[in-house]
Amino acid sequence: MIKVKVVGCGGYGGVGIVELLLRHPEAEIQTLVAATETGRPMGELYPHLDGFCDLPVLTPDDPAAQVPADVVFFATPDRVGMAQAPAELARGARVIDYSGDFRFDSAETYAEYAGRIGLATEHLAPELLGESVYGLPELNRSAYRDDQRLVGNPGCFAVGCILGLAPAMAAGLVERNSVICDCKTGVSGAGKKPSAIHHYPARYENMQAYRLSGHQHVMEIERALGQVAGEEVRVTFTAQVVPVCRGILSTLYGTLREGVGPAQVREAYEEYHRGNHFVRLYGRDAAVGTAHVRGTNFCNLVVDVDERTERLRVVAHIDNLMKGQASNALQNMNLICGLPERMGLDQPGAYP
Amino acid sequence: MIKVKVVGCGGYGGVGIVELLLRHPEAEIQTLVAATETGRPMGELYPHLDGFCDLPVLTPDDPAAQVPADVVFFATPDRVGMAQAPAELARGARVIDYSGDFRFDSAETYAEYAGRIGLATEHLAPELLGESVYGLPELNRSAYRDDQRLVGNPGCFAVGCILGLAPAMAAGLVERNSVICDCKTGVSGAGKKPSAIHHYPARYENMQAYRLSGHQHVMEIERALGQVAGEEVRVTFTAQVVPVCRGILSTLYGTLREGVGPAQVREAYEEYHRGNHFVRLYGRDAAVGTAHVRGTNFCNLVVDVDERTERLRVVAHIDNLMKGQASNALQNMNLICGLPERMGLDQPGAYP
Amino acid sequence: MIKVKVVGCGGYGGVGIVELLLRHPEAEIQTLVAATETGRPMGELYPHLDGFCDLPVLTPDDPAAQVPADVVFFATPDRVGMAQAPAELARGARVIDYSGDFRFDSAETYAEYAGRIGLATEHLAPELLGESVYGLPELNRSAYRDDQRLVGNPGCFAVGCILGLAPAMAAGLVERNSVICDCKTGVSGAGKKPSAIHHYPARYENMQAYRLSGHQHVMEIERALGQVAGEEVRVTFTAQVVPVCRGILSTLYGTLREGVGPAQVREAYEEYHRGNHFVRLYGRDAAVGTAHVRGTNFCNLVVDVDERTERLRVVAHIDNLMKGQASNALQNMNLICGLPERMGLDQPGAYP
Amino acid sequence: MIKVKVVGCGGYGGVGIVELLLRHPEAEIQTLVAATETGRPMGELYPHLDGFCDLPVLTPDDPAAQVPADVVFFATPDRVGMAQAPAELARGARVIDYSGDFRFDSAETYAEYAGRIGLATEHLAPELLGESVYGLPELNRSAYRDDQRLVGNPGCFAVGCILGLAPAMAAGLVERNSVICDCKTGVSGAGKKPSAIHHYPARYENMQAYRLSGHQHVMEIERALGQVAGEEVRVTFTAQVVPVCRGILSTLYGTLREGVGPAQVREAYEEYHRGNHFVRLYGRDAAVGTAHVRGTNFCNLVVDVDERTERLRVVAHIDNLMKGQASNALQNMNLICGLPERMGLDQPGAYP
Repeated sequence: MIKVKVVGCGGYGGVGIVELLLRHPEAEIQTLVAATETGRPMGELYPHLDGFCDLPVLTPDDPAAQVPADVVFFATPDRVGMAQAPAELARGARVIDYSGDFRFDSAETYAEYAGRIGLATEHLAPELLGESVYGLPELNRSAYRDDQRLVGNPGCFAVGCILGLAPAMAAGLVERNSVICDCKTGVSGAGKKPSAIHHYPARYENMQAYRLSGHQHVMEIERALGQVAGEEVRVTFTAQVVPVCRGILSTLYGTLREGVGPAQVREAYEEYHRGNHFVRLYGRDAAVGTAHVRGTNFCNLVVDVDERTERLRVVAHIDNLMKGQASNALQNMNLICGLPERMGLDQPGAYP
Repeated sequence: MIKVKVVGCGGYGGVGIVELLLRHPEAEIQTLVAATETGRPMGELYPHLDGFCDLPVLTPDDPAAQVPADVVFFATPDRVGMAQAPAELARGARVIDYSGDFRFDSAETYAEYAGRIGLATEHLAPELLGESVYGLPELNRSAYRDDQRLVGNPGCFAVGCILGLAPAMAAGLVERNSVICDCKTGVSGAGKKPSAIHHYPARYENMQAYRLSGHQHVMEIERALGQVAGEEVRVTFTAQVVPVCRGILSTLYGTLREGVGPAQVREAYEEYHRGNHFVRLYGRDAAVGTAHVRGTNFCNLVVDVDERTERLRVVAHIDNLMKGQASNALQNMNLICGLPERMGLDQPGAYP
Repeated sequence: MIKVKVVGCGGYGGVGIVELLLRHPEAEIQTLVAATETGRPMGELYPHLDGFCDLPVLTPDDPAAQVPADVVFFATPDRVGMAQAPAELARGARVIDYSGDFRFDSAETYAEYAGRIGLATEHLAPELLGESVYGLPELNRSAYRDDQRLVGNPGCFAVGCILGLAPAMAAGLVERNSVICDCKTGVSGAGKKPSAIHHYPARYENMQAYRLSGHQHVMEIERALGQVAGEEVRVTFTAQVVPVCRGILSTLYGTLREGVGPAQVREAYEEYHRGNHFVRLYGRDAAVGTAHVRGTNFCNLVVDVDERTERLRVVAHIDNLMKGQASNALQNMNLICGLPERMGLDQPGAYP
Repeated sequence: MIKVKVVGCGGYGGVGIVELLLRHPEAEIQTLVAATETGRPMGELYPHLDGFCDLPVLTPDDPAAQVPADVVFFATPDRVGMAQAPAELARGARVIDYSGDFRFDSAETYAEYAGRIGLATEHLAPELLGESVYGLPELNRSAYRDDQRLVGNPGCFAVGCILGLAPAMAAGLVERNSVICDCKTGVSGAGKKPSAIHHYPARYENMQAYRLSGHQHVMEIERALGQVAGEEVRVTFTAQVVPVCRGILSTLYGTLREGVGPAQVREAYEEYHRGNHFVRLYGRDAAVGTAHVRGTNFCNLVVDVDERTERLRVVAHIDNLMKGQASNALQNMNLICGLPERMGLDQPGAYP
């Protein structure tokens, strides 16, 4: 059994990975760590886990929190993982970090990312950036090394945008700078910490765009698509929040290159995602919505061409807390531990 | 492997049991039958099952629908199961029916039930009523025979009310005719069929009571509590609908008998539910809500005494589609097939 | 024109009275005061008021906040109004306070109230308690003096419970200590301040009871009903929160006295509420819900008798921010300023 | 007083105009007509109107429904207004139609519209098309004639898209064929009739795109923008439904023409909407959402430039049942009856 430590277990990303690990046949939760609300059993902090996971939530400096693990998930904000990952790696762990800390492969790129969103630009463990991998298997499974021990789990918005646009970029279907990502997220994407704008009455029957001046996930979308396209890509990205708990609906647009039609589009998507079990493709008339991926690791893509305006339109559906975070992280664990990629993840969710 | 037929697979009760069977280690779905929306694969009717269950949905008279099964679930309205159960039993199946058809043990009792709610009062298979069992294991596990082959799965409201009040009745804690059940259900309890009152805008930010003149689940609550109490019990029952999808919150009141205090109450509940894995007990200060049982077979009970007014107050939380329907039905399948009662059910749900 | 000051304009109770005053033909908002988020125009704090109310939000000690007003609303937490009301009264204002500060008519009663809910028990302006009136006109319009200058606006839960039960108490329909109030509120009742339990994802698809150990509105319900009944009354009260923004659904139960039947009940309610324009009475089959009073000063009562158990059952519907708070406060303003009681309040709301 | 008849009073568009007329100082509802649910008072069909509007709902062929009115609103589906408008005009009424029947000025254009969305292409009153006006005052107030007696009220999606893009088109800010309209609507936009896809549980926590193959409002958007631009315009339009009741959030994109920057954009929008009281302009950092226009005739526009990609981005917020339907229709009534445009409309809504 793989022994797992979860740092940041008290947030939504933490509880998500705990839920998944509880039903994973080859993993076992060994240690839970958080910065706040410590000293109580996990099943008291999250009553749905009562009887399933009653391990105590430890403070980071608790001696019991130092026990070596086989895999450590950092379900933590930016700049926590980079501070603690070196010690965990030194103890022999593999590390999967949820934040932007290990999504970029050089100190320069990190500095650009951090600068854009107002973080300190100096990476605290630059020596690790060369061995980290961007953790979206459907995009770059081949980039994972046999002994991969460090993964930067992608941003929730990035997952849907990249899975929905990479096939078009790879096949050169669209003008590279014509891409617009119009994304709508449920409120859980903002995390567990209460705030005025995520207070229940403030969100009720309310939809709005936010961070128009720049969202932290844009850069990784542009970098990933640019790598696939083989040239620099810039996208217009709009984050919007709608009053549901879970789900991201990303509507993605690009101007088709001269002569590209629906058949070619369909073919390119089928080819690109052929080996990607967790991506399901649909035509324009399919009645699919975010409820159909809720609680799962799936990304459903409706692939469409607006022939009147010669545009590609792809609608990507994910659960922001699953494929956008915890279940994708578990998929990464499977990959870097040599387990079947789908282990513990191949479940349909519940409806309605 | 147990081969299973689901009749009425197109409704919420049907899709619920399909979801659960897909992850059950000893069962296999063999046949899906419905009265409408037939001829398509289940995974097209319910896109979240796409790739997980692509069996065709058959009409009841399709020859393929007649193949004998080990277990047949009737996820159907009143008076469907009673018409078809005899044939299924004759083919050797065990039958679990979701409706009121097999919840009562005599034609007279059935007639009273049916008459109260405006159904035809004649039972179509009265000879089976003697061998059916009321299917709430936490109430009457001992009433299941070794060769039990017919179960009347309880009504969703009844589950929470009975689990929340049976301990008090068994221990004689409250005046037997002082009981009030104030129940709030999510909209999925009304089923899949569209109607004016369950249209999205009509329910949005709307709470209301309904069927004040009499709800179909009252009689089974009274009968179950009466059997536990050893004397006739009448309850005031109020059904209310609130704008969520899943969940029933039942707040249950009873006047404490002279001299009964909190300690005795707590003890009675702990004793009664000691062997009931799927019942969790909490004190008045616990921060539990219906979200903590969503997607699970659990019933969470907050057990409280209002000492100022000398009343017992129990707050019961269930998922109406799970413990109130499909997962309880699966628990019944486990019991009558000689499998561990918790098989395929022991999962914590997802939060938030 | 009546010149109005609103203290605590930044909360939901404050913005509610501002909205109502903007359409009141005889009142004019002169001064807005708040403890936080000051220094900006009201229409920036609440963008729906942009262009309608762009007065600045002043700090309490701003000289401009001291300008005498004809009416001062304290839309503030407990113990703010009692500290500032004497000065406002001295300047000639009439005062309407939203909190528990002026709901009780003696220092002893206040102390009991405050003690129950953990506040300091000493009233800061005990000399005013004798002239304050409990501000629920449908209960005690006749208690308002001609020169009434101080009103304690009732608690939101109390409004529905009292309007729904006072007729029964007045007519002696029910056993006085048999009353149970099962109340479900939308989240806006908890106010504007963010907290973990009112964070959007924490409330989504979640229903729960809270403060089982004692709610601050119980005492005023008991006192009001006791005054009507002419003897002490104790009620079992349960507060529950459901994931809507606005609305309180209160289901009220009482054991009918020997010989009391539906006709007598109906008659008592019609008689009691005959002059109460803002109370609408319905029978058990009416399809009314909280959405039908949203945004209005109405209280809809479904009056029912459960004949099987000989209980009175009344379902009271209000908008917690309107009849439960701001619009009731405006009704009080009309009354104490000699204006028609319905002025500025007689509107139907919007649906759906 | 203007005497008003509402045909189609039983739908959401009908009840919306009834609510508004009830508070309009110069109008009086005289006749209510509907095709279904007739024979009952309006206040029984819509209980929030109980006591406010208890006129009976008449069938279209009821003699009382033929009484001449000053203004007739057809809150009806396509092809009802065109059949009945000639008779109403002949009786001397002014007519405001909610459907596509009178949004186009020639039989040919109508035929194109109708053909796109699968309706019969023959207009039943082609002789009236020349005198009808497209009823979006902020776009084309000057096109209303002094004796204007027929108005085609715009489609709900069209309102936000046109108000958000017309300034850019008028000032030549963007490439004319670069426009994308990504629109999210609440469920009330689908009307009152129950259906499987708008059933409460089917919409709960569900977001999805629909009618990707072509939406009925696209053509009027293209026509209006083309008229403003002075050349043909084609837009990519995506309709999406999110689980709220009211509101449309339209995010609008266009590629800026060479050299166009934020200052020029801001100026163009301010100039275009200077006289448009019901349009409010905001910068990218404003915290405005659809809740801030709910229940009102306002359209809030966040006007932004994504400088990295040189795109205009406008976020338009309306209440689909108000500015997207009923309140815009009332604004039209004011205009064609010579009343102040804002009469009965200048209200801020309620929050939260």
